[in-house]
Amino acid sequence: MTRTGGARGLPDAPVETLVERARSGDPRSVARLISLVEDASPRLPDITAALVPYAGHAQIVGITGPPGVGKSTTTSMLVAALRRQDSRVGVLAVDPTSPFSGGALLGDRVRMQEHAVDAEVFIRSMATRGHLGGLAWATPQALRVLDAAGCDVILVETVGVGQSEVEIAGLADTTLVLLAPGMGDGIQAAKAGILEVGDIYVVNKADREGAHQVVRDLRNMLALADRPEGAWRPPIIETVATSGEGLDKVAAEIDRHRDWMTGSGELDARRRRRAREEIEAIAVTSLREKFESVHADVRLDALAESVVRGDLDPYAAADSIIAAL
Amino acid sequence: MTRTGGARGLPDAPVETLVERARSGDPRSVARLISLVEDASPRLPDITAALVPYAGHAQIVGITGPPGVGKSTTTSMLVAALRRQDSRVGVLAVDPTSPFSGGALLGDRVRMQEHAVDAEVFIRSMATRGHLGGLAWATPQALRVLDAAGCDVILVETVGVGQSEVEIAGLADTTLVLLAPGMGDGIQAAKAGILEVGDIYVVNKADREGAHQVVRDLRNMLALADRPEGAWRPPIIETVATSGEGLDKVAAEIDRHRDWMTGSGELDARRRRRAREEIEAIAVTSLREKFESVHADVRLDALAESVVRGDLDPYAAADSIIAAL
Repeated sequence: MTRTGGARGLPDAPVETLVERARSGDPRSVARLISLVEDASPRLPDITAALVPYAGHAQIVGITGPPGVGKSTTTSMLVAALRRQDSRVGVLAVDPTSPFSGGALLGDRVRMQEHAVDAEVFIRSMATRGHLGGLAWATPQALRVLDAAGCDVILVETVGVGQSEVEIAGLADTTLVLLAPGMGDGIQAAKAGILEVGDIYVVNKADREGAHQVVRDLRNMLALADRPEGAWRPPIIETVATSGEGLDKVAAEIDRHRDWMTGSGELDARRRRRAREEIEAIAVTSLREKFESVHADVRLDALAESVVRGDLDPYAAADSIIAAL
Repeated sequence: MTRTGGARGLPDAPVETLVERARSGDPRSVARLISLVEDASPRLPDITAALVPYAGHAQIVGITGPPGVGKSTTTSMLVAALRRQDSRVGVLAVDPTSPFSGGALLGDRVRMQEHAVDAEVFIRSMATRGHLGGLAWATPQALRVLDAAGCDVILVETVGVGQSEVEIAGLADTTLVLLAPGMGDGIQAAKAGILEVGDIYVVNKADREGAHQVVRDLRNMLALADRPEGAWRPPIIETVATSGEGLDKVAAEIDRHRDWMTGSGELDARRRRRAREEIEAIAVTSLREKFESVHADVRLDALAESVVRGDLDPYAAADSIIAAL
């Protein structure tokens, strides 16, 4: 069994044991580690320290695009294509779950059932816990678990447009941007920032009317970008995810992108940048936690009250909080 | 002239003078202050301190909804409806501009032209400068400028779904959620968190097929929410923004929501929470800037390199950065 959602009940094995078992491909240990990571367990620093030496092998592939474009089906079919290349595959499905509902409206995900019995596929659905930066915070940790567990490729599927594709582009080695006919005009897509983050563009539902127009628009917009000699030129692949058509081509382009990334030094550069951002995020979170300690919290409320009354400006209030740390 | 986009050339008047002129309704001073705020001018703390005593009057109305739903037209028609009530109106249009393009693909916004000659309407288009939290950072400052300039209502229009509507809900006194027929099924909307943040729901394009179904679905989903006695029950208004139909009703509901917010104490509570978050954001940014000082920057690069090599875990790296501050 490789569906990793139900393993929260695993007894608290030592971190080293969990990591060792995860490395040998034990799905329950992988699940347990991701749960600990997602819950921001106090053991997180230990877990991270135990995983770091084994991470760095996996190619992280972000999959983004507007709702309704067929991300889940594409992801599922891409898993199949990658399995045909004998890759061990991880899937993280990230929901920008509302901070208000706790995700109750989402219902249960029952996706990817066809891969649930494949021992070389790990699947995990993550909530972002509502806080902004939730994805930025927990996803790199979960990716590190799957990476250390020996995944060759990890697909990270994110829902929606907006700022999330920016985060995905920051996290991924390779970003797939999905489009489809009938999803609104090109300018809308450009607004959402979707046209600047892709390493590979996938025009799904290519059997539908308007698909060729989407490809043409995309080609024209990509042609506007000023790319230096030797730069990666994002390919555009047409797919029909429901039938699996074109997915082997997507898998091949993912391979080709990895080779280019490695050869050009871009892979190292992205990973250094990502490590830098992660360190910064951890440091900022750690400082933020200090604000939320009981003492600082009471002080912060009093300062907020003064700002609302117009007696104090927020910069002076912030200075006073920093001084108190 | 009230279009405030072109005033960056205003000579550097003292902050006090700018604030005084903005309060008397001078659009060039309002524009200049917003530009300073958007550019994160070193004078920002002074500007904020000068504005704080005069802020707190305006009702901040967030307008959100998926691309293509008619947000711009609705905003424009709502301005007209609010003007019929003799309100002074501010409009902030916020683009989640890509960090990659610098917004070049967006082209120029030529909206709201019909209001450009009305001295009681301030219109401003903001970019979020690509950094996450950009909206969270610059928008409250820009709102404070418009607030101090005597706006009764400030409309904040945000593009796209995803995490942005969460930010808007955090910033606004009143959140309008726009939906329209043919924008995808209800579950997609729920995924995007749109169904939990609205104080007023607007079903636009109400003359189109499927509009009644959207209203019904919305009513059913809202009915699932568990609201205590005396809580605000979000109304659903049907509009045809292109003809202005229903917008007076929306304006009336905005009024009614303000009255409820004031009476219930919710307005004060939201404003205190917002002040708190602003103080926290300023403090965190100020700490983050310390990371980016030359010394810390070199150190951070070296730590990132160690993390990529697997020699150091990011928690240990973060501790070391904090210790160095």
